[in-house]
Amino acid sequence: MLVEGRHFLPDAEPRRLGHKALAVNLSDLAAMGATPRWATLALALPTADAAWLEPFSAGLYALADRFGVDLVGGDTTRSAARVISITAVGEVPPGMALARAGAQAGDDIWVSGELGGAALALQRPELAAQFAEIARRLHAPEPRVELGERLRRLARAAIDVSDGLAGDLGHILERSRVAARVEYALVPKCPAFEKLNDADLERDCVLAGGDDYELVFTAPREHRREVEALAIELQLALTRVGTIAPGEGLAIVDAKGRPLQHGGGFDHFGGR
Amino acid sequence: MLVEGRHFLPDAEPRRLGHKALAVNLSDLAAMGATPRWATLALALPTADAAWLEPFSAGLYALADRFGVDLVGGDTTRSAARVISITAVGEVPPGMALARAGAQAGDDIWVSGELGGAALALQRPELAAQFAEIARRLHAPEPRVELGERLRRLARAAIDVSDGLAGDLGHILERSRVAARVEYALVPKCPAFEKLNDADLERDCVLAGGDDYELVFTAPREHRREVEALAIELQLALTRVGTIAPGEGLAIVDAKGRPLQHGGGFDHFGGR
Repeated sequence: MLVEGRHFLPDAEPRRLGHKALAVNLSDLAAMGATPRWATLALALPTADAAWLEPFSAGLYALADRFGVDLVGGDTTRSAARVISITAVGEVPPGMALARAGAQAGDDIWVSGELGGAALALQRPELAAQFAEIARRLHAPEPRVELGERLRRLARAAIDVSDGLAGDLGHILERSRVAARVEYALVPKCPAFEKLNDADLERDCVLAGGDDYELVFTAPREHRREVEALAIELQLALTRVGTIAPGEGLAIVDAKGRPLQHGGGFDHFGGR
Repeated sequence: MLVEGRHFLPDAEPRRLGHKALAVNLSDLAAMGATPRWATLALALPTADAAWLEPFSAGLYALADRFGVDLVGGDTTRSAARVISITAVGEVPPGMALARAGAQAGDDIWVSGELGGAALALQRPELAAQFAEIARRLHAPEPRVELGERLRRLARAAIDVSDGLAGDLGHILERSRVAARVEYALVPKCPAFEKLNDADLERDCVLAGGDDYELVFTAPREHRREVEALAIELQLALTRVGTIAPGEGLAIVDAKGRPLQHGGGFDHFGGR
């Protein structure tokens, strides 16, 4: 459920908003390895404003059509602030759904795409003119649907990065009752950070920034070649960033293996 | 999608609200002859107020449990006004779903339960103390799930009375491209109207009052005995109120067959 003033600004571009409202739902399905099938849309608006509704619908339907998602129901009503509530339903063969609880010690930890761009656009909107990529990441995320479908046979656990790598990987660790070691230097980062040269901002965005809607997943070591081949086939970076271990907690370490120090609020990476 | 201030008041009893928010969705499924299976709940609240959330959930789960509905997903977020968005999914055997488009000339028109009580409670809240039934009708409607399931083989078209008999039956007529004649004296009315003795108020509530969540359906004449037997089996009044005819438009007539005159706004019963 997206609420105006909280999840988007009143002047948010409606076409992008229609895309994003569905994309975040498809991303959740992708993280379970599901093929999206149907969606319903409930919409509360102050007025039946065609200048807003038409591009909103165009953005939503363009994404729905791309993934063969049928809009099968819905509701419209009035409210002071706009509210968008989408429910998406997908299908996955019995027993093949990816969950948070499947990670095992020894698994590789993988991340799709690059992280931190959406958070950078949120924290530093003035940079959007310089780096078009970060605004696209924030406002028009691409749900990793094909990746999720292909990971059914390869991955043991998956989640989408909606709240930040540390927190979302933390959910996998908690549910799977395992620990993880992630090498920060290996984490794929939005290219904009190279030019900004601000290590604190980068770590904050890459580890705690949400809204990227990439997938983080764990897979047994023997699937390493297949995951690499999948990256080439899908033309999507899939990067090995660490390893699942017995125990509990998430250690994010620098190239020398030292736990990363961070200024703001990451004293319990795995515990969120 | 139910929005505070529009669909319910801020001080609405949360247990009843939890019931009603799901009930109106199950009613839509019942009108299609579907067996409810799953639901998702998206909830926006100003604060995580347990004194509200607990009875709300209790009301919702009590109804869900009664019909074997699993709450399979959801979302919570913050907003200034409470917003409740429920999506319910049901199942019906292939080809057996009831729709608005199936009515045929010669069909009987049936109504379940009694109409007008919810609208009366809405228009005259001061009467709730005198007639407990009308407040229950408005705040805790009973979705006609078993009736909908049993009507799969008996009815040709169905809809739930959420916007008023005239308007909702009008939807069936439009989609089925047929006309209807309804005898007002036959329409089952909430017993409170007998004591109030206000013919205008009664007609307004019975024909245009929404929120009753009874079913109006059409069935071939040869199923008349079976529908009557079903009423006894379900211990639910099923009343024959009129007939589907060729043509278009809805005629609501008095006992002498004269079109009903009504003071307020019903110049096009069938055209809404």
